[in-house]
Amino acid sequence: MTGTPDLHADDLHRSAQDPALAAIGFLNEVMSRYPEAISFAPGAPHPEFMRDIDTRALTDRFVAHLVDERGFAPDSAQRALYEYGPAQGLINGLVAEALGADQGIRADPREIVITVGAQEALLLTLRALFRHSGGDDLIAIADPCYAGIIGTARLLDIPVVPLREGEAGLDVDHLAAQCREAREQGRRIRACYVAPDFSNPGGARMPLASRHELLDLAEREDLLLIEDNAYGFTATEDDGLPGLKALDSRRRVVHVGTFAKVGFPGARVGYAVADQRVQHGDGERTLAEELAVLKTMTTVNTPPLAQAVVGGLLLDHGRSLAELGRSKAQRYRRNLQCLLDALDRHLGDDLPPGITWQRPAGGFFVRIDIPVAADLALLELSAAEYGVLWTPMGQFSLTDRCDRQLRLSCSYLDPDQIEQGVKRLATFLREEAAA
Amino acid sequence: MTGTPDLHADDLHRSAQDPALAAIGFLNEVMSRYPEAISFAPGAPHPEFMRDIDTRALTDRFVAHLVDERGFAPDSAQRALYEYGPAQGLINGLVAEALGADQGIRADPREIVITVGAQEALLLTLRALFRHSGGDDLIAIADPCYAGIIGTARLLDIPVVPLREGEAGLDVDHLAAQCREAREQGRRIRACYVAPDFSNPGGARMPLASRHELLDLAEREDLLLIEDNAYGFTATEDDGLPGLKALDSRRRVVHVGTFAKVGFPGARVGYAVADQRVQHGDGERTLAEELAVLKTMTTVNTPPLAQAVVGGLLLDHGRSLAELGRSKAQRYRRNLQCLLDALDRHLGDDLPPGITWQRPAGGFFVRIDIPVAADLALLELSAAEYGVLWTPMGQFSLTDRCDRQLRLSCSYLDPDQIEQGVKRLATFLREEAAA
Repeated sequence: MTGTPDLHADDLHRSAQDPALAAIGFLNEVMSRYPEAISFAPGAPHPEFMRDIDTRALTDRFVAHLVDERGFAPDSAQRALYEYGPAQGLINGLVAEALGADQGIRADPREIVITVGAQEALLLTLRALFRHSGGDDLIAIADPCYAGIIGTARLLDIPVVPLREGEAGLDVDHLAAQCREAREQGRRIRACYVAPDFSNPGGARMPLASRHELLDLAEREDLLLIEDNAYGFTATEDDGLPGLKALDSRRRVVHVGTFAKVGFPGARVGYAVADQRVQHGDGERTLAEELAVLKTMTTVNTPPLAQAVVGGLLLDHGRSLAELGRSKAQRYRRNLQCLLDALDRHLGDDLPPGITWQRPAGGFFVRIDIPVAADLALLELSAAEYGVLWTPMGQFSLTDRCDRQLRLSCSYLDPDQIEQGVKRLATFLREEAAA
Repeated sequence: MTGTPDLHADDLHRSAQDPALAAIGFLNEVMSRYPEAISFAPGAPHPEFMRDIDTRALTDRFVAHLVDERGFAPDSAQRALYEYGPAQGLINGLVAEALGADQGIRADPREIVITVGAQEALLLTLRALFRHSGGDDLIAIADPCYAGIIGTARLLDIPVVPLREGEAGLDVDHLAAQCREAREQGRRIRACYVAPDFSNPGGARMPLASRHELLDLAEREDLLLIEDNAYGFTATEDDGLPGLKALDSRRRVVHVGTFAKVGFPGARVGYAVADQRVQHGDGERTLAEELAVLKTMTTVNTPPLAQAVVGGLLLDHGRSLAELGRSKAQRYRRNLQCLLDALDRHLGDDLPPGITWQRPAGGFFVRIDIPVAADLALLELSAAEYGVLWTPMGQFSLTDRCDRQLRLSCSYLDPDQIEQGVKRLATFLREEAAA
């Protein structure tokens, strides 16, 4: 590019200069410079699930459903794939059925809004709940966390309070303390974002007692919980640990989900369950209906074509998210076990001091603690000299607590790549990350 | 719903209570209560264009393009429909080619971001350009205007300055005066939204001289123009009037387009051309690249499947938006002529005093001025007693200038419905809207 610049970065909204996003850019760039390196970085679904998706058969299936069960004329049902659709969504009924059958979430279609991925659901929820940008209302976020929730808060100028998250998930006492501290400052924590089941990147899982404590605290402090359930499907089926929304008898939880992992990411279909009643002068609406109003200002509708493909997937799998995700969950559990076994095999004996890792029972991620800074310079060295890539955990955190941690993702790799990658990683850690 | 409400409307961000959105809700509700009424309300594309869209053939075409021209391995090309894709888009090259061939816009793929409809492009552009929510920077908007731009400004708490728009489009002198006034108050107009070609709902078109004046003013006042080109394709092909972006030698214009009308709305694919250079500490980016960064916080990617369908449509139509839109433009010009002829035939003779209408040369809309308030009560009467529906122009305006205007849309109807509808409308206007 030539000539004088038209704008300076400082002229733009600061969310475009988010350091975590710059780090992701660097990571992608490193990956492209070392194409032969084995990468534990991408949290993307395994490529094998991107094959044999027959979109025509799936949309045909959904069109038949519109005609047979929802009273559409055949011509209108076909056109529904191509026209503007309702802002709230086309597949709300199917999603409600699946959540009821699989997760014990009783939701009416009016209490659900279908979104362009979980990311838009987070954006709409934060926008609705925070009356003023840059105001006295705060969002508390289990930290480390999915970069998208911090990004959304920054986009809307909503101040963020990071909360500690350990092996047993969100530290509920820390949230209680932060609520008190905010109150003393004349502010309040309006909402708390948490992924209780195999959080990204922490891999943490909240025990049942903490879930109840968190719900009680939310009621006591009059705050809403935003539950992100992207990785819950990887739990074993006899698991029996209910999500926050299934336990939510007081409508304190907005539940956010996605078809990116149980379906495929390119559909860009997610949803929010928001059954809270909102009083208007002229009656009541659900919070999901309010989110749909806001959605007319972000994307108008979730592409009907994409919703139809996802609707077809649900119809093809007994209207069940669990059934849709079953073979995928098996694959990811197998990969995770394979990763943990390889770490034991290649690092477990003669473990360098200061190196530990956690043993999650699900999700895509394993965290390794090392005794030196897991920064971009160390990543570059790991890629260049040892042919293995990972993600610095610091980029998922607002604090310095994760600066000596790295994240391994097992979702995108095959077992032989995992084995080979851990072998390289073990050499790298022994040689470069010893205390 | 039962029980006490969980939230009050005042607890939520005020954009959810936008009065224009409430009016749209009322309009939809009236339409559903009077299904036999002929409706000039929907600005949606004609249903005939929602048939015979072979999505499989279109995505196959696009996959072949990725392999043949962009060096994808066949397996990766197929997977690209289902995986996460680049935030900036998959079809940027095809859109750049089409804009160059059809509209004289020279843009590099790096200067384009593909979005979930034009709406997301507006959202990202406003977010990038306005550093602070509720700050001293203002957006000026040609008024009356597309409700989506006001909605986006409200969503981001950006203060709006309405500008006069007449038959000859945006009043450039009014913008100049508002820039001065803002400066005197220690504020500034950062950007101006304008649809120079057949605006919705005004149907206005800016002459060439005003376009140059507007570009000069933008340079002088250091503001950016956001050009919305949704209806430009309905101009006749020998028209020769260039868009703002084609005249933009100083990179003052962000050009926003959509495939909703030349393709189909359910694709939800739009784009922004943003070639402005943004200086960073470590080099330069295009503004489109900045918008792509922000997009990771709104929707992550535009669904690759939808982009592939649109890419296939472009490939099937000589990589030309004009060719893709040709038969549609013909249909809409025919409908518009039919509407204007019917108005002449049924209202032209013995015209009640105070009733006039404009004669746009393109677009979907005709505005009628009446001597009484064109409000929701009058609409209800029109539907109940005369069997004809229209849109009160007031809902597209931030001022009271449009309170005695109604909008007719010709896009969704067939000529015989237009004829019959105008007959009903003429009776209604003679009986209920006389001075």
